[in-house]
Amino acid sequence: MERLGNYTLKLNPPAYVRGSGSFAGKKEGEGPLADYFDATHDDTTLGEESWEKAEAKLQTEAVKTAIQKAHLKNTDIQYIFAGDLLNQCISSTYGLRDLGIPFLGQYGACSTMAQGMGMASVFVSGGAAENTVAVTSSHFCSAERQFRFPLEYGGQRTPTAQWTATAAGAVVMSSRPSPISIQEVTFGRMTDLGVSDANNMGAAMAPAAVRTLTDYFTDTGHMPQDFDLILTGDLGYVGSTLLRKIMKEAGWDLDNNYNDCGMMIYDRKKQDVHAGGSGCGCSGSVVCGYIMKQMLKGALHDVLFAATGALMSPTALQQGESIVGISHLVHLHSDAPNELA
Amino acid sequence: MERLGNYTLKLNPPAYVRGSGSFAGKKEGEGPLADYFDATHDDTTLGEESWEKAEAKLQTEAVKTAIQKAHLKNTDIQYIFAGDLLNQCISSTYGLRDLGIPFLGQYGACSTMAQGMGMASVFVSGGAAENTVAVTSSHFCSAERQFRFPLEYGGQRTPTAQWTATAAGAVVMSSRPSPISIQEVTFGRMTDLGVSDANNMGAAMAPAAVRTLTDYFTDTGHMPQDFDLILTGDLGYVGSTLLRKIMKEAGWDLDNNYNDCGMMIYDRKKQDVHAGGSGCGCSGSVVCGYIMKQMLKGALHDVLFAATGALMSPTALQQGESIVGISHLVHLHSDAPNELA
Repeated sequence: MERLGNYTLKLNPPAYVRGSGSFAGKKEGEGPLADYFDATHDDTTLGEESWEKAEAKLQTEAVKTAIQKAHLKNTDIQYIFAGDLLNQCISSTYGLRDLGIPFLGQYGACSTMAQGMGMASVFVSGGAAENTVAVTSSHFCSAERQFRFPLEYGGQRTPTAQWTATAAGAVVMSSRPSPISIQEVTFGRMTDLGVSDANNMGAAMAPAAVRTLTDYFTDTGHMPQDFDLILTGDLGYVGSTLLRKIMKEAGWDLDNNYNDCGMMIYDRKKQDVHAGGSGCGCSGSVVCGYIMKQMLKGALHDVLFAATGALMSPTALQQGESIVGISHLVHLHSDAPNELA
Repeated sequence: MERLGNYTLKLNPPAYVRGSGSFAGKKEGEGPLADYFDATHDDTTLGEESWEKAEAKLQTEAVKTAIQKAHLKNTDIQYIFAGDLLNQCISSTYGLRDLGIPFLGQYGACSTMAQGMGMASVFVSGGAAENTVAVTSSHFCSAERQFRFPLEYGGQRTPTAQWTATAAGAVVMSSRPSPISIQEVTFGRMTDLGVSDANNMGAAMAPAAVRTLTDYFTDTGHMPQDFDLILTGDLGYVGSTLLRKIMKEAGWDLDNNYNDCGMMIYDRKKQDVHAGGSGCGCSGSVVCGYIMKQMLKGALHDVLFAATGALMSPTALQQGESIVGISHLVHLHSDAPNELA
């Protein structure tokens, strides 16, 4: 590994994507990316007794599928990096308890997918493991009742509120070459501009994404136009607008090749999601589903995935704290020939 | 790095301890390890408005002191690995927000100190960083009201209950040689034998420690007698008794060189702590205080530190789940000559 500038790791050798899994709920299955999930569930509980257990099951499914697609067994995986939004990350614990794989719990809020992918890649590139898994999940119902109101209360949502996706994504990172690799990783610094509205997390997280993207461009000398796609997850419409505006003022134009997982997972015109999707599972399932499939068929070659997280708890906000944002970034590269070329 | 057996990483080169910090509360300051903390606080709130903010401040203090003792600046640290028991790990977030160091949130419950030390060491040994920090904390008051009862309720504690330490520990891991190093790391697998009593976490966690210690001895060929100290954290009296019993039945005798951070931090005869101490900050402060100081003066040369965590939440237990245990292990080695020799 080589350090570029202050904040970026160049992975030499790179870590390779050997398989991925992506599962989601009913609403996500009615959205524009429906065909790219491995499966969607019409039943919010997945047949379990609680939403928390349903979310855990989404993680189990995503990991098992990713390992199967990698043609590996659980015993071939040295470490699993997992986290979620629930208190004490219980979706990860209970979803992965029976796998028998050394477990390293991660907490990055909605940045967890990129944090885990970065960790898994650093372990592989540094020689600590041949195969690792990164996984995360979220569930609309378990998140709403923990962070906002009981669903039965029927609380009114504000226009800036995002819809927590019911979804999970998992990826196997490996030292064995494959068409898709992670080339660089930029782990983020905490950024807090004082936003304290739990219904406007896009605004709270956008400055963190600005910081990490700027760090990456500065460290590597790459420019936004070097990428087929610059993808945040999950700023939604409000946060993405802020991000593009701040980046443009700083001289980085994202107008041509930018998108956000929270804007991609739902059809805003037909689905009542206000400012778009959010939750660890949103970017997790979009990246491990749609993005990986586009990269595998050569439709995307260089993707900069900067996941964003709001490191907040209801207790902290009740005590007058502001929302701390963070953004972790990985550069995904595909060598697959374009099938359409 | 070299993989030994199925679960252990031999760090080549090792990662070195360059500085550590250890802070605690009033009760810990009245215990047998009082002289080994960098400071103790008589005021449970540390002058802050809430116990959560007090706990965050303990992390700030521990990290700042560790970096100072390492004769480094914040900008010399590439990554900080931090976690705690509070929902969404807010002690770590708010305690470390202003440092400007790339932040990687960890969730290992009371195993967080070893998980973070292991992570920090793998990053250093693998060439991803020159200097990293691992830190964790806990606070009796913030933990009680989150996991059990409001303090004002005055709930009766059971004989198997452990006392969450008000404390924090931080360590700087570095590529620059120093007397104390981490030689091997064994990250643990989740272990669940069905214990569901949140007031008997020692019993829930002991099987995980058995598993990780057994993995380590099997992978490396080391025997318990190769170590000056085998240290769990924090099984307390109940869990430690179980651990010794199970290990003995499996042919590993820990009778001569075993201790537990939860048994060391308080004087059970004089202090009303029932089954001993617990909480991320218990093993964090014992290892980053007492143990590091003993190793620096050559009184201990080889310490096997196996921290244990109960990956539980009140919600999971209310839904009928059992408590999942995990244990992560690091082998600390000191080259310091024995001052008394």
